Amino acid sequence: MAEFGLIERIRTRTAVDRADVRVGIGDDGAVLSVPAGHDLVVSVDTLVDGVHFPARTDAADVGWKALAVNLSDLAAMGATPAWATLALTLPDGNGTWVDAFADGFAALARESKLALVGGDTTRGPLSITVAVHGFVPEGRALLRSGARVGDRIFVTGTLGDAAAGLACLDARHPRGVEFFNAPAGTREALISRLNRPTPRLAQGLELRDGASAAIDISDGLVADLGHLCAASGVGAVIDASHLPASAALFALFGESERRVLQLCGGDDYELCFTASDLHADALVSALSRTGGGVTCIGRIVEGAGVSVLDENGAEIPLPRRGWDHFSA
Amino acid sequence: MAEFGLIERIRTRTAVDRADVRVGIGDDGAVLSVPAGHDLVVSVDTLVDGVHFPARTDAADVGWKALAVNLSDLAAMGATPAWATLALTLPDGNGTWVDAFADGFAALARESKLALVGGDTTRGPLSITVAVHGFVPEGRALLRSGARVGDRIFVTGTLGDAAAGLACLDARHPRGVEFFNAPAGTREALISRLNRPTPRLAQGLELRDGASAAIDISDGLVADLGHLCAASGVGAVIDASHLPASAALFALFGESERRVLQLCGGDDYELCFTASDLHADALVSALSRTGGGVTCIGRIVEGAGVSVLDENGAEIPLPRRGWDHFSA
Repeated sequence: MAEFGLIERIRTRTAVDRADVRVGIGDDGAVLSVPAGHDLVVSVDTLVDGVHFPARTDAADVGWKALAVNLSDLAAMGATPAWATLALTLPDGNGTWVDAFADGFAALARESKLALVGGDTTRGPLSITVAVHGFVPEGRALLRSGARVGDRIFVTGTLGDAAAGLACLDARHPRGVEFFNAPAGTREALISRLNRPTPRLAQGLELRDGASAAIDISDGLVADLGHLCAASGVGAVIDASHLPASAALFALFGESERRVLQLCGGDDYELCFTASDLHADALVSALSRTGGGVTCIGRIVEGAGVSVLDENGAEIPLPRRGWDHFSA
Repeated sequence: MAEFGLIERIRTRTAVDRADVRVGIGDDGAVLSVPAGHDLVVSVDTLVDGVHFPARTDAADVGWKALAVNLSDLAAMGATPAWATLALTLPDGNGTWVDAFADGFAALARESKLALVGGDTTRGPLSITVAVHGFVPEGRALLRSGARVGDRIFVTGTLGDAAAGLACLDARHPRGVEFFNAPAGTREALISRLNRPTPRLAQGLELRDGASAAIDISDGLVADLGHLCAASGVGAVIDASHLPASAALFALFGESERRVLQLCGGDDYELCFTASDLHADALVSALSRTGGGVTCIGRIVEGAGVSVLDENGAEIPLPRRGWDHFSA
């Protein structure tokens, strides 16, 4: 941790001062103070150029997204963000790119009251690794493993928008011209969901009171709900007709395409959570007050895996696995 | 943090169980407990193939080094290691490479009682980002900024070995044949210092009692001592004839080459620290008991920057800056 030029430049733009940062950037390590009675929650994600964002994505969008995908993990744990480290590998010392990246990163850091406390810059093919740190009252972290048979399944916001945005950016998409001719703002709304996801932090905090399990949707609803079910030792049944869709998704995609995007599209960074009937109504009220919407999409059942039913109760075959960046 | 296959495989090999890990790998984030009365120290470093280690370095050595360079930062802060996250970008899902990498990482993790608590694997050009977390009693972290005029300057171990090891690996080095014909073990000892650096953790703990400032030597003595001086608002004078050298370095390099390697060679991961006359002797005794040696190499002076003097007190011009992976 010796190369502070770029990282310090980014920190200056971030400009979040926190009393719990005893020593920030500039020494061999940051010295940080976790509040008494709290656990530390840590999550790390890497974004690789052309894999986790389309090549030539705006630097400011990359900066935002690199932090957003990590904050989304904190949201899913019910944690409050505190600090981040940033490891930035760049093909060259392009100052304009770095400044724009820093602006995007800083915009979300300020909004989240998150301080950049360390980092490293190296030369190589563009990739960004962010590790975020947050707090949760001792023993109160929201896990994937608490879903019980009979719990209702909910998602925040709308699904499929980011994957639809990716389709809109695909120059070879057969319906590309149609996308461009859509009502003003439609295409842009979807692309913005891809490039500037909103971590559902306020919602995550509310979920600590009553949700039985939670996960963020990064790889697609079916894939991520599948992770939650596996961790909880249960199965899930989703009612496809209840999946929330944005106006933009409705405008550009017919029912069958829409379903694939909603069920299997990655990068939405909404939260998927479960709650018993006892807690569900109060939770829905609390989440409604945070804005962004919340929808019941199904039930936890005995067994394993995720089934999707149409409005007649017939199972819908799933076209493919969720977004999978890497498998070994 | 959804792709756990590789990371879990590495964690299993690491096999360090810590009671302060409430939730480890497998959820959206790790849930961790910092002991009361302690600060958290966090450091992050990225290693890029062909930049921070020679291309085709043994995977086990890469695994060891990726953790070692980070633990060295904790050592320089006087911190005790606790947890790490690992972000691994791989060109393909080469299981043999990953297993060997995991073995190297795990060997050092076990030795350091460090638990792997999170990670991410992505596809792309080989690079590794490790973030380490350690503890230090509240307010007791060792900083770069505490050196005072008159303090003595010390280093642990020997200097220049890793850079000498890199020279030994250079197929185009004019003296390559000579290196190969050196007494058995000489070349290997130097290469091992490059590939398997030892973080000076035990020494770092001792330094909390009495050292005024500390830094680890990753970029070369002059460069890193320069960082320490800049942070402390002081200058430094080094006596070149006091620089500690290993037997292997002596065997293969003459005085002028040796000095360059000792002053400017990177990757040694020894500690450089300062102490007042009042504390110096007790510190040296304490460090001697940890093994590995400690040598007084100079004094902190008024002013700025690092000067190096020969045995006649004449200033030695410095041939070049320390190892600098990236500057912008």
